[in-house]
Amino acid sequence: MESTREWAEKQDLEDPLSVFRKEFALPTGVIQLNGNSLGPLPRAVPDALDEVVRHQWGEHLIRAWSEDGWWDAPVRVGDRIGRLIGAGAGRTVVGESTSVQLFNAVTAAARLRPDRPVLVSDSTNFPTDRYLATSVARLLGLRLIETPMGELGEVLRRYRGEVGAILCGAVDFRTGELWDISRTTADIHAAGGIAVWDLSHAAGAVPLDVDAAGVDLAVGCGYKYLSGGPGAPAFLYSAARHHDTLDLPLTGWHGHARPFDMADEFVPASGIDRARTGTPHVLSLLALEAALEPLEAAGVAAVRRKSLRLGDYLTRLVAEPSDASGAPGSDRGLEVVTPSAHDRRGNHITLRHARAPEVSAALMERGVVTDSRPPDLLRLCLNGLYVSHTDVFDAVATLRDVLREVPRAGEVAG
Amino acid sequence: MESTREWAEKQDLEDPLSVFRKEFALPTGVIQLNGNSLGPLPRAVPDALDEVVRHQWGEHLIRAWSEDGWWDAPVRVGDRIGRLIGAGAGRTVVGESTSVQLFNAVTAAARLRPDRPVLVSDSTNFPTDRYLATSVARLLGLRLIETPMGELGEVLRRYRGEVGAILCGAVDFRTGELWDISRTTADIHAAGGIAVWDLSHAAGAVPLDVDAAGVDLAVGCGYKYLSGGPGAPAFLYSAARHHDTLDLPLTGWHGHARPFDMADEFVPASGIDRARTGTPHVLSLLALEAALEPLEAAGVAAVRRKSLRLGDYLTRLVAEPSDASGAPGSDRGLEVVTPSAHDRRGNHITLRHARAPEVSAALMERGVVTDSRPPDLLRLCLNGLYVSHTDVFDAVATLRDVLREVPRAGEVAG
Repeated sequence: MESTREWAEKQDLEDPLSVFRKEFALPTGVIQLNGNSLGPLPRAVPDALDEVVRHQWGEHLIRAWSEDGWWDAPVRVGDRIGRLIGAGAGRTVVGESTSVQLFNAVTAAARLRPDRPVLVSDSTNFPTDRYLATSVARLLGLRLIETPMGELGEVLRRYRGEVGAILCGAVDFRTGELWDISRTTADIHAAGGIAVWDLSHAAGAVPLDVDAAGVDLAVGCGYKYLSGGPGAPAFLYSAARHHDTLDLPLTGWHGHARPFDMADEFVPASGIDRARTGTPHVLSLLALEAALEPLEAAGVAAVRRKSLRLGDYLTRLVAEPSDASGAPGSDRGLEVVTPSAHDRRGNHITLRHARAPEVSAALMERGVVTDSRPPDLLRLCLNGLYVSHTDVFDAVATLRDVLREVPRAGEVAG
Repeated sequence: MESTREWAEKQDLEDPLSVFRKEFALPTGVIQLNGNSLGPLPRAVPDALDEVVRHQWGEHLIRAWSEDGWWDAPVRVGDRIGRLIGAGAGRTVVGESTSVQLFNAVTAAARLRPDRPVLVSDSTNFPTDRYLATSVARLLGLRLIETPMGELGEVLRRYRGEVGAILCGAVDFRTGELWDISRTTADIHAAGGIAVWDLSHAAGAVPLDVDAAGVDLAVGCGYKYLSGGPGAPAFLYSAARHHDTLDLPLTGWHGHARPFDMADEFVPASGIDRARTGTPHVLSLLALEAALEPLEAAGVAAVRRKSLRLGDYLTRLVAEPSDASGAPGSDRGLEVVTPSAHDRRGNHITLRHARAPEVSAALMERGVVTDSRPPDLLRLCLNGLYVSHTDVFDAVATLRDVLREVPRAGEVAG
């Protein structure tokens, strides 16, 4: 009987991933359903960072660039993230913020189609993607067409022969809807375009195979499902076929073919090294590296399977009457926004409620960490790596309590 | 008699800044003369970072963005760096790498003079500055003129009415030569241009007053004289008079006027907040913040006075005969490249030697950390905050030992 806490506890006892929960420093009394915004602290990180700071920086000083592998870290960590997204070695590099990497990737993508005057940008994407696409279009003198992902096919037809780069979000940050990367990329290629994917809400959450899907360029965030810590550096992926012609605007000296020649002219390095920018933020970068271990050990596929189960469980609980006399979820002003089909959703479930910001704040006060997005969306991230069935049960129970207190819009608190 | 170690020890005993040496975790048996590349570990950093990681991230999760001041950190740390460079509050922001900030600053500077077709770039600047200036010129369709700082006046005359932005290095990373920021900026303004300064080798090393000097925009490095750790985030300064019109290309969501509205259009924040980019690298950023304390306590002016004394001392020792029968420095193939005048040099002293890379490697083996720059320059950074007279004495003694073993170019090792 899954509407009891005992049922949830039993699932957790039988859960092969439950061993990974202890790899995260989850605060007592807190249910972390916000890993799509900031992943929790992996236990390995503090000691790893202390070693980097006290031993490598403190004792080795500049020798650490070679002896401790700092110089190679952007591509070494890139390769580790690459394995999590289906990228072969030497196709992923880590550094800077997601916004900066988006700028770099979209500019380079548009330059791969210099004769195409239109840049397409997913209008449902996270705002920073849209702002940077706008900036690139302006700098390159391109016409910017914004379209929701669902209408991309129509845009590709309408601007056939004109569309160069297309910036797409893999998972809708609001609704949690997952797009078909492989099919969409094929459609983009059929139209002669270059597909740039923002994988921020997909990397580490959903099994990806960017190589097989033919993705041209991709960018993603280090601090959501990768749990790399606040503001962890972002990653940039480029298909190997583009490496020789990738013409990136952020020509920092670490991307030079021979950086220590200190040469007059920028000569891009071969391979993905050309997408290095300036000196990497070593402390943030190596915290991210240490954070990857539990996810690598569990495997994205297994985490995904459990996350989907948790999502199904949550949506069923939300729809249940709260007690024998209670009304089902929809009567509490809640609506599940995220598609129920497994192949059409990421790892967060979005609920619509007219007072989502208040609900999220009230949940936070009661130790359930979620967030809201304007105007009326409540997001609950179910990362199977550390979220349990019991967490979901308790979170929904708390949500019911909160909804008894937070009136629906239009109602007056009684 | 300053050619004795006793003399150096006496100077250290009388040195009011000697108390700050213990604020840095200097490895035993190592003389750190490389703070212009990577400042040593300030003792306050490991515990501060551990608090950020275990307590703030680990326990507060996303609440730390407000409760622990993460959201404000880019401008809060910016203001602290601002005080070190003579910038009033609200004019400096921290984030990303120096290369990225250069791109952002130079693009915005050129856009402040949309009718000017020429971008000028200091040809003696660090390579990344030159590469990014090249990239900006290409994106904006500007003609790039590269000139050594000493010939800038001539370039401003030749391209009168055409020059928009000028990217200058405050301290020559090779020779250690310091340029007159105030006078050069006045010359640039007289020509109708916008002065962008790279302060990487000046911030924290040389007393600066960017506000009084009329600097338009400036960028600098967090891990040299600010000792913020490997790849510490860079800073960007903008004069307040430009804030309303500053049109930056890296329009990340943190620079939005109302970032949590998640609005369709980028509306830049007022003030320096518009120069925020993506989510800041909190771990690297807060390590930098903790690192600033000793420098703030000592004051840049006092550190500079001592650094100049150390530089004078080093150049005198280098010129001395090594012993009663020895030859002076110049006969060992050494030449002091850095100007001797205090108002014309930064805080590193550059020596020319035909085999500088070998000399630097041999010094490193003996615990004296320096570096070399192609083709023949050896750099010794004298940061008065933690370098002592005894360090200088011992380093020069070691240099003499090394030079007995490393033959000059053209000679065959005996």
